Amino acid sequence: MAAKKQNKSSRKSWGHRLTAEADAATAELLASLDVDVALWKYDIAGSLAHAQMLSEQGILKKKEFTAIKRGLASVAEDIEAGTLDMPLALEDIHMVIETALTDRTGEVGRKLHTGRSRNDQITLDLRMWARDAAETLAQHIAELQRAFVELAERDGKTVVPAYTHLQRAQPIVAGQAMLAYVEMLQRDADRLADCRKRINVCPLGSGAVAGTSIPLDRARTAELLGFPKYSRNSIDATSDRDFLAELCFCCATLGMHLSRWCEDWIIYASSEFGLLELHDAYCTSSSMMPQKRNADTLELIRGRSANALAQLVGILTLLKGLPLAYNRDLQDDKRFAFEAVEGIRQAIAVAPGIVRAATLRQPDLTSGYLDATSLAEYLVNKGVPFRTAHGIVGTIVAEAERRDLPLSDLSLDDLQAHSDAIEADVATYLTAENVVKRYAPDGAAGAKQLTKQLRFWKRTLA
Amino acid sequence: MAAKKQNKSSRKSWGHRLTAEADAATAELLASLDVDVALWKYDIAGSLAHAQMLSEQGILKKKEFTAIKRGLASVAEDIEAGTLDMPLALEDIHMVIETALTDRTGEVGRKLHTGRSRNDQITLDLRMWARDAAETLAQHIAELQRAFVELAERDGKTVVPAYTHLQRAQPIVAGQAMLAYVEMLQRDADRLADCRKRINVCPLGSGAVAGTSIPLDRARTAELLGFPKYSRNSIDATSDRDFLAELCFCCATLGMHLSRWCEDWIIYASSEFGLLELHDAYCTSSSMMPQKRNADTLELIRGRSANALAQLVGILTLLKGLPLAYNRDLQDDKRFAFEAVEGIRQAIAVAPGIVRAATLRQPDLTSGYLDATSLAEYLVNKGVPFRTAHGIVGTIVAEAERRDLPLSDLSLDDLQAHSDAIEADVATYLTAENVVKRYAPDGAAGAKQLTKQLRFWKRTLA
Amino acid sequence: MAAKKQNKSSRKSWGHRLTAEADAATAELLASLDVDVALWKYDIAGSLAHAQMLSEQGILKKKEFTAIKRGLASVAEDIEAGTLDMPLALEDIHMVIETALTDRTGEVGRKLHTGRSRNDQITLDLRMWARDAAETLAQHIAELQRAFVELAERDGKTVVPAYTHLQRAQPIVAGQAMLAYVEMLQRDADRLADCRKRINVCPLGSGAVAGTSIPLDRARTAELLGFPKYSRNSIDATSDRDFLAELCFCCATLGMHLSRWCEDWIIYASSEFGLLELHDAYCTSSSMMPQKRNADTLELIRGRSANALAQLVGILTLLKGLPLAYNRDLQDDKRFAFEAVEGIRQAIAVAPGIVRAATLRQPDLTSGYLDATSLAEYLVNKGVPFRTAHGIVGTIVAEAERRDLPLSDLSLDDLQAHSDAIEADVATYLTAENVVKRYAPDGAAGAKQLTKQLRFWKRTLA
Amino acid sequence: MAAKKQNKSSRKSWGHRLTAEADAATAELLASLDVDVALWKYDIAGSLAHAQMLSEQGILKKKEFTAIKRGLASVAEDIEAGTLDMPLALEDIHMVIETALTDRTGEVGRKLHTGRSRNDQITLDLRMWARDAAETLAQHIAELQRAFVELAERDGKTVVPAYTHLQRAQPIVAGQAMLAYVEMLQRDADRLADCRKRINVCPLGSGAVAGTSIPLDRARTAELLGFPKYSRNSIDATSDRDFLAELCFCCATLGMHLSRWCEDWIIYASSEFGLLELHDAYCTSSSMMPQKRNADTLELIRGRSANALAQLVGILTLLKGLPLAYNRDLQDDKRFAFEAVEGIRQAIAVAPGIVRAATLRQPDLTSGYLDATSLAEYLVNKGVPFRTAHGIVGTIVAEAERRDLPLSDLSLDDLQAHSDAIEADVATYLTAENVVKRYAPDGAAGAKQLTKQLRFWKRTLA
Repeated sequence: MAAKKQNKSSRKSWGHRLTAEADAATAELLASLDVDVALWKYDIAGSLAHAQMLSEQGILKKKEFTAIKRGLASVAEDIEAGTLDMPLALEDIHMVIETALTDRTGEVGRKLHTGRSRNDQITLDLRMWARDAAETLAQHIAELQRAFVELAERDGKTVVPAYTHLQRAQPIVAGQAMLAYVEMLQRDADRLADCRKRINVCPLGSGAVAGTSIPLDRARTAELLGFPKYSRNSIDATSDRDFLAELCFCCATLGMHLSRWCEDWIIYASSEFGLLELHDAYCTSSSMMPQKRNADTLELIRGRSANALAQLVGILTLLKGLPLAYNRDLQDDKRFAFEAVEGIRQAIAVAPGIVRAATLRQPDLTSGYLDATSLAEYLVNKGVPFRTAHGIVGTIVAEAERRDLPLSDLSLDDLQAHSDAIEADVATYLTAENVVKRYAPDGAAGAKQLTKQLRFWKRTLA
Repeated sequence: MAAKKQNKSSRKSWGHRLTAEADAATAELLASLDVDVALWKYDIAGSLAHAQMLSEQGILKKKEFTAIKRGLASVAEDIEAGTLDMPLALEDIHMVIETALTDRTGEVGRKLHTGRSRNDQITLDLRMWARDAAETLAQHIAELQRAFVELAERDGKTVVPAYTHLQRAQPIVAGQAMLAYVEMLQRDADRLADCRKRINVCPLGSGAVAGTSIPLDRARTAELLGFPKYSRNSIDATSDRDFLAELCFCCATLGMHLSRWCEDWIIYASSEFGLLELHDAYCTSSSMMPQKRNADTLELIRGRSANALAQLVGILTLLKGLPLAYNRDLQDDKRFAFEAVEGIRQAIAVAPGIVRAATLRQPDLTSGYLDATSLAEYLVNKGVPFRTAHGIVGTIVAEAERRDLPLSDLSLDDLQAHSDAIEADVATYLTAENVVKRYAPDGAAGAKQLTKQLRFWKRTLA
Repeated sequence: MAAKKQNKSSRKSWGHRLTAEADAATAELLASLDVDVALWKYDIAGSLAHAQMLSEQGILKKKEFTAIKRGLASVAEDIEAGTLDMPLALEDIHMVIETALTDRTGEVGRKLHTGRSRNDQITLDLRMWARDAAETLAQHIAELQRAFVELAERDGKTVVPAYTHLQRAQPIVAGQAMLAYVEMLQRDADRLADCRKRINVCPLGSGAVAGTSIPLDRARTAELLGFPKYSRNSIDATSDRDFLAELCFCCATLGMHLSRWCEDWIIYASSEFGLLELHDAYCTSSSMMPQKRNADTLELIRGRSANALAQLVGILTLLKGLPLAYNRDLQDDKRFAFEAVEGIRQAIAVAPGIVRAATLRQPDLTSGYLDATSLAEYLVNKGVPFRTAHGIVGTIVAEAERRDLPLSDLSLDDLQAHSDAIEADVATYLTAENVVKRYAPDGAAGAKQLTKQLRFWKRTLA
Repeated sequence: MAAKKQNKSSRKSWGHRLTAEADAATAELLASLDVDVALWKYDIAGSLAHAQMLSEQGILKKKEFTAIKRGLASVAEDIEAGTLDMPLALEDIHMVIETALTDRTGEVGRKLHTGRSRNDQITLDLRMWARDAAETLAQHIAELQRAFVELAERDGKTVVPAYTHLQRAQPIVAGQAMLAYVEMLQRDADRLADCRKRINVCPLGSGAVAGTSIPLDRARTAELLGFPKYSRNSIDATSDRDFLAELCFCCATLGMHLSRWCEDWIIYASSEFGLLELHDAYCTSSSMMPQKRNADTLELIRGRSANALAQLVGILTLLKGLPLAYNRDLQDDKRFAFEAVEGIRQAIAVAPGIVRAATLRQPDLTSGYLDATSLAEYLVNKGVPFRTAHGIVGTIVAEAERRDLPLSDLSLDDLQAHSDAIEADVATYLTAENVVKRYAPDGAAGAKQLTKQLRFWKRTLA
């Protein structure tokens, strides 16, 4: 068994010239197998397409291609089943698969790498992975958007305070806050779609850095693998990792949005705010304090945003200052990209359940002077310049605060003492419920604007 | 004068309720004027459009609008001339402008802020700034691309080594490396264009967080300011800074590309590599060592990539975990975005000059066995499986190294000793010059592929 | 005037060999004067010590030293007064000062740079700046610690809820939370003191990279400038910027602590929590909403933590992968370090005022089952294993929640229904006030532990 | 089997109150077992000390302690052997161990958690891990320092160029560059030692946030676990993760140093520089290009610096803005700290081998005018002011460049044409070899300064 491993080790792609044995620590550093094993399906798909193209170009004989196709299928089966031997000495999944293929097919397996280098092979695999990752994230985003839309439909017309600076600001229908997250998520989806355009370029055929003298049909390989186009420049194609950095950025921004949402809901779910009740399934308690009911899932999701940002920093720092073209530093690109996507995927997978199971509670709306701005706008309608109106209302609020009353409990006399522009109709501008009814422009936080937004989103997310 | 300042201070937008005086350190912390003064043109343009819309809606009288228009024009003139008094106590450029307007127009100036909040005002200004910043960067990118294309046209057919791992890899026409940067820059341009779509949404009319009861015509304001659409949700609109984070990411990626290019050229310009001579205008010497000729400009550009990444981290960290909606933390968004854009702008502005003034030197091509891969592919053509061919050539190279000879100086007998597939025609696969001629697929590093790429880029960048 | 500037430009230290004129963009990129002007005092102090040492070594004549001393003093006066001409073409503050000196002293000024390079000069200046910056920050930290200690002395015995996961956890004396910040800040102070050891090494005498043949007395220069030791290796000395990275890390950690504190207090100051009232001097209102009273200063301080982290990323990324020794990328080191220190300094300068002026409010302690853990520990005292006790209390809390009662309002019968270990003495373990009295170990959140901590801190911070 | 797992799941510490089942995605998000399993030894050690202290305090009976001790030992054995069942539903290693203990000891196992919370337990485990991690890194650092010192002893007197801006600067003995890395590493060691002081504080006894009414002897637990002191404030103790952030910073700085070294050596090992030959054991070749010999290990090490910085950003971002005290976001702290330490550990483990096996090659010293500064200093000795001398030498170098000669090949007449201060003794200031002999001050790059440094390091690292 050990002997067999050593045998394989000597078949490393570069085994013929460098003879000294790397020690264990070196082998550990050089190996990426623990990470890039995740790429095996893409590696096999890429090899298959490459072999088919070689065969169509007459570079492989029909029979050779058939043998390779069968060999790769059998290797895939074994990986799927978890039975393929993967000696660390082979360093990466590409050599594991090629070695296994050659073990099974003999000589012909040694032809697979014709006109190909690990440099274009790995970036092909990464692009196929990234394409799937972007798609998976997009589906999770849409699912979370649908959850918020459902919540907004169910509970969205409840009038609640909007907060700025975590202080009560203006009254809103609650759905306005729920749909704010849908907006953020839509930008995430749009960014992922834009990123996908840059992912979706086939690098195969670029060789190690300069291409090859083998007459490959790059358009055909690209077509077989579902790429709408192939790369224009072999040096760039083998050293470009922008698409991973951009995917990490998409994760970081998505993570930031999730974090903002969780921050809100953690606060709203505190007993002091009491705006929101989370379902037990998404809470845990304490090992010491028997009464606790903590929003742990929200906190874990919030924390994951730090992870995505970290990976973005990692990959951009990795790339900074690398000379052309491929450098082995790039081995760690996967570490960052996989971690960014997987960390966020785990987080967003839980989010729709949390949203759908949440219960909104009706808060007290009489404190916080949520109708102060409305009163100022009432004065504007009566011809008072806004700044002046703002000042008058500031003074009225100060008085109401001293007397510990909501504005609607001040008498008309009290109000008129501050401005003779105030008349009896002022009542319809006071109380949170009245204010919400008066919101006028598109996009404001009233029920009719909510209805319009909900219509848009249900159409868009259908 | 001091009295006048205090007077202004008391006119702060919130001066009516909060009476205690902030001390100097607090005033310094609260003020963003030193940074956001850069937004003054956008602030005036936004106010003008808002006022015109208010007037068209009948909320301002024709005469009032005319007075505001004149007032804003006169304020703009004074800012342009550097004569406007900007007391720190007014905190930000918005209050500076509104206060100056009111000083000049009296009562009517106090009507400008009708249906508007600093929250939608500032993000409007930022979006207009970001739109221009993206456009400026795009122009610099195109100019740098043109410089690389010109260099590739002038010197691009010279055969040079391509490097991977900073070791000689395969021979290329030099233009292939120059156009690799053009590819990177094109992705930067594409990303900026995608970012611009998300910048280009008018937030005005969202008020502080929930909108307003004033019947604004948001479509009209957007149209006046050249926005193709306006925001759908007031809470999101007032707290969204994605567009700044995305702009910072565009800068970080662009910076990373510039850094990779500079790293290459700093190495190529070393006396040891000697591939490239930089023009004196872009070098400096040493205060102590009279012989030095350092590529300082390239190093400064390389360094700036760190700055752009830093600002990206700053803005994403700032945003992480902020509850809805506007929080004052956001005051520092400008700090990051301005610094990211300005740092990169300074760097990329110098780059085209460096590129155009550079001189390529013909390197020695006989060392480094640049034709080894070609020899392996020769064997493939003779029916030897690639992996086997790779092994044979490895052994041949090892022998040539021992004898300190290039492959083309080995005799046919020497070569045939390693494989009887080798025949006299092998000569046409050896030497860097021959190799370059044989590159077959699209995107490879030969002269004909270069010509095709150049044609593409000249059309695209015209 | 323009002529004079050109004249100066030709006196750039490297003016003799490189003749082509840098264009405006290049000049802008090369210049660091706008940033490093902040170092002028250190530059003059360093030059003075260098000259005195040269004179003591007989390298400068007594008279020459006197002339240089007078010249530097006069330059210093003019910089102080803001009257020194600082043409951008001189690039940095070092050349500005040396040029001004030579203008005033003639030939002798040209001797100042003997045995010195800008490379050791700039890192000397930076180390002196960093030493002062660390000292300034340390003073601000101590001041903020004292403010928290004063608050803890004044209001610290009030019983309030401690929160974990932003849910009510156990009752504490409020001072325990206030002193938690003092602990954090103490670690910041300790880190700064450790960093200072690494700052406080004199690099002068290392020349450009390799030293000099001039017989400098490095110990003497170090002594004159208050450095306890000087650097051991010229290459390291001229390229080391660890001390700036470490200072940035100290700022980032300090910023993170300030951010945690602000997050707490922003939440506590919400009307929903109502635990804390901030003084008007540290709040602002809204331009639109007349009733608002926002904790803007806390939010700005919280935001600054993002800035410090950004600068840390910037400097570490800048340094990553730079070959030995000095590279011009390092010009941007100042940008990061100055911004990190200044950003945090502005924030922390405001903090003690906020703390001292804050008013604690007594919250309701009957909700949240703050005494649940105490009840479990009561059962432990009666011999029930803790995990079992935890389970029993969990069930009791569930019942109390259903009946909307605090634990202390359950009857003894109710309690005994869950465990016959419960007896009448259970009452002394219930209610938040009773719980706090029972805290036993050092460091727990009771009044006696607070007294001990306060004694420690008053002694330490005296 | 499935039944057994569900059974365990219901024994989760908070299983009594929250009944709804978390779905699979939620369970995956909540679980940290895959990461924190690495802490098992520390968790058992901590539990053991806690139990012993409880027993010494009379809270556990002697017999109970013995049972727990035996139980923990048997659990440890099974974990070591890899036979302990670790159901994901138990979430973390703490519950896995406590559950296994209770399975084996019955009732008494349920007493272990008396006066303890997962909040102080986890930070105890982390501190013990961090203490070991810092120690491991310190040993690797010392080993790498020794390798550089050995190399400097073996090959360090060879005269080579020092580079600034990657251009030849002044001549040095090669050991000066090797010992520059030793200086950097020493600062890393010092920082780790400083960090260790802040790690080495025992948090146990702080409970969930406020302590406990159980009379723990915190000094005793600390003593049993080798901590010189215990924490002063329970809120801080349970929420402080500074020590992990600082450890990550130590890794990031160490990584940055390793990256600088690798950057140097990758460049020096290029065929163009040819200063250094790496041993085959640390190089790999290419899958396509049979001649390649790439410094892959150096590139991987360089890349790892990006990883360490990423983790530092992750943990600081995670902590930013967390309210007091423990929040579940902190679960991801381990992810960052473990990855930072392990990534750097893998890299630095390989480094000493690379250094010891490297071969220095004697470069050509006649190009690059390495003696220009020396010539200027010759003129200074003859009374020419340094700036004037710098200018004269600049002109001489320009002439020598035109004639393609080293300075030492210019005739005395040629030299005197530029300055009549030049006499025949100038020859002893020219050529790199002569220059190196003249370096005067401590820390300069001559052989005698090297000897002094070597003496210091051999004593220090012994």
